[in-house]
Amino acid sequence: MDALDLDTPALYVDLDVLERNIARMQEQCRAWGVALRPHVKTHKIPEIAQMQLDAGAIGITVAKVGEAEVLPGDDVLVAYPLLKAKLPRLRDLAKRRRVKVAVDSAPVARDLEGIETLVEIDVGVGRTGAQSPEQAVEIAKACSDFQGIFYWPSWLDEAGFQTACAKIDSVLDALAAAGFEAKIVSGGSTPGAAKTPLIPRTTEIRPGTYVFYDASSLAAKLCSEADCALRVLTTVVSTAVPSQCVIDAGSKTFSSDQTVGVGTFGHFIGHRWTMRKLNEEHGYVEIDGPAKVGDKVWVVPSHCCATVNLHDEIWYGRDGRVDGSWKVAARGRVR
Amino acid sequence: MDALDLDTPALYVDLDVLERNIARMQEQCRAWGVALRPHVKTHKIPEIAQMQLDAGAIGITVAKVGEAEVLPGDDVLVAYPLLKAKLPRLRDLAKRRRVKVAVDSAPVARDLEGIETLVEIDVGVGRTGAQSPEQAVEIAKACSDFQGIFYWPSWLDEAGFQTACAKIDSVLDALAAAGFEAKIVSGGSTPGAAKTPLIPRTTEIRPGTYVFYDASSLAAKLCSEADCALRVLTTVVSTAVPSQCVIDAGSKTFSSDQTVGVGTFGHFIGHRWTMRKLNEEHGYVEIDGPAKVGDKVWVVPSHCCATVNLHDEIWYGRDGRVDGSWKVAARGRVR
Repeated sequence: MDALDLDTPALYVDLDVLERNIARMQEQCRAWGVALRPHVKTHKIPEIAQMQLDAGAIGITVAKVGEAEVLPGDDVLVAYPLLKAKLPRLRDLAKRRRVKVAVDSAPVARDLEGIETLVEIDVGVGRTGAQSPEQAVEIAKACSDFQGIFYWPSWLDEAGFQTACAKIDSVLDALAAAGFEAKIVSGGSTPGAAKTPLIPRTTEIRPGTYVFYDASSLAAKLCSEADCALRVLTTVVSTAVPSQCVIDAGSKTFSSDQTVGVGTFGHFIGHRWTMRKLNEEHGYVEIDGPAKVGDKVWVVPSHCCATVNLHDEIWYGRDGRVDGSWKVAARGRVR
Repeated sequence: MDALDLDTPALYVDLDVLERNIARMQEQCRAWGVALRPHVKTHKIPEIAQMQLDAGAIGITVAKVGEAEVLPGDDVLVAYPLLKAKLPRLRDLAKRRRVKVAVDSAPVARDLEGIETLVEIDVGVGRTGAQSPEQAVEIAKACSDFQGIFYWPSWLDEAGFQTACAKIDSVLDALAAAGFEAKIVSGGSTPGAAKTPLIPRTTEIRPGTYVFYDASSLAAKLCSEADCALRVLTTVVSTAVPSQCVIDAGSKTFSSDQTVGVGTFGHFIGHRWTMRKLNEEHGYVEIDGPAKVGDKVWVVPSHCCATVNLHDEIWYGRDGRVDGSWKVAARGRVR
């Protein structure tokens, strides 16, 4: 079947592009001498996680225990502060797979008795993570199985990069002085992996988006249009309003995440159109030429992770054909 | 079980509030002399649709055929331009239930041969719908079973309301002059139903949000906090950054829809906290007092429709107890 014959809206992944993206990131990590532990929250699909592992990834990164429960990988990093209520499920997971958890407070570290832990360091974004080397040491002391440190994100700008490098250095020095050897220094995110130099002493990275890329990656010049493996097939459903068409995909298909730095809701393939407004099932598209009801239009979504998370099924294939579909097995696994 | 013992993040509906919201809107419609045809995209839950029907709703409104396929109601309005690819499923639905479709172009109206249609009128928002009375008549002529007209949204401000009233009047007059009797004048949305006067000659309205209300309804003064039936139970997972806590709910729990007019991502119950930034699984909360890791916090989401659409299951109960859960049966039914 031709992908253009899919009923819309439909998510479609080009397998050639997906495989190339996975292979390239793996090669880049080999060249850098760091391990790759992809964040699988981007796709939530067991088959894609397996492709990443087969290409050489050392394990997977997840945000939620529920994701790990349905995705493969013998070595799982839960990149999230994990509280008591989730420990029974975590311990169950740890019976069959090697499990590590990132922590940023001493009480949580103590609750994780017997589990390998990484101490999270805030390298400048102000979300989670120890604020100082002293705090990092305090948390490490509460860990029963300290394995190293964890930071997020990697950096696109030079100033942020320098700050993060200095912070990591000072934390590692303080930990070493207190007798803690960080075997793992886990850094992450696609923007950094695709563009900036690697923070020294990093041993593994956790990019997610690189499997698909998206309109935000494109706007940040991290990839070309040809690297965008995930596309949304949509149909023009109304041309009633002049200079505009409406497509059958809105925030329940794309999510409400805007293209970072641009403020639109997706990148159109083959059209110089913009989409500045969405309702739940309507995309308002400013057009610069003819559009007629029934036209099929391909859109690269603004944020691939958020888009995939809205769908139960994604089609895949090569050369514009549909070869099959995957279930988004970890979709909605918020706990 | 106490709702506070739910693992988080978790969506919880207070049944007393839900029942009161459903009853009040039904009473309001009776007082106005219009029928209520609730838009069930808000909840996507068969049991809630049934409560609305039991209270007196004449049928349901959906955006997608896939929603109608799993939600009850003998009389279904598909409030969306429906193209050829979906007609087999629509005709199948029409064998068992009365089905109407809103259309805004003559070719689409012709494709819907044998199906009851409402001609959509753009009353000022510039999304879909006939732009002029002449266009409305042209589309009506293409309908094999013209039943009336359809508009969206209702209006909060006086100028928008006057424009919409004038437009509806001129369209109905033009249609009557061309021999088309509009038995149905279908208007809609919760903001209008809750606040503005009804556009004259309207025969039915299609509010959705009123079952739950949300932080946007609250900001627009359409309801009080006590009317917000849907709440998200979250847990503080990090307090590492001063003057901030992070909760275990981000854009994959709440969606990225902001509270309309306010620019935050939810309303906190019992705290004067604000949340101005979300990542996928992290909510960044500005706090004005103590917060500790493990604290459970209730949040009214910015946009209930988008929030529910991210979840497979919603718990419900009375007086803070959990009495059961509903499956969000039409979640992800984008086609």
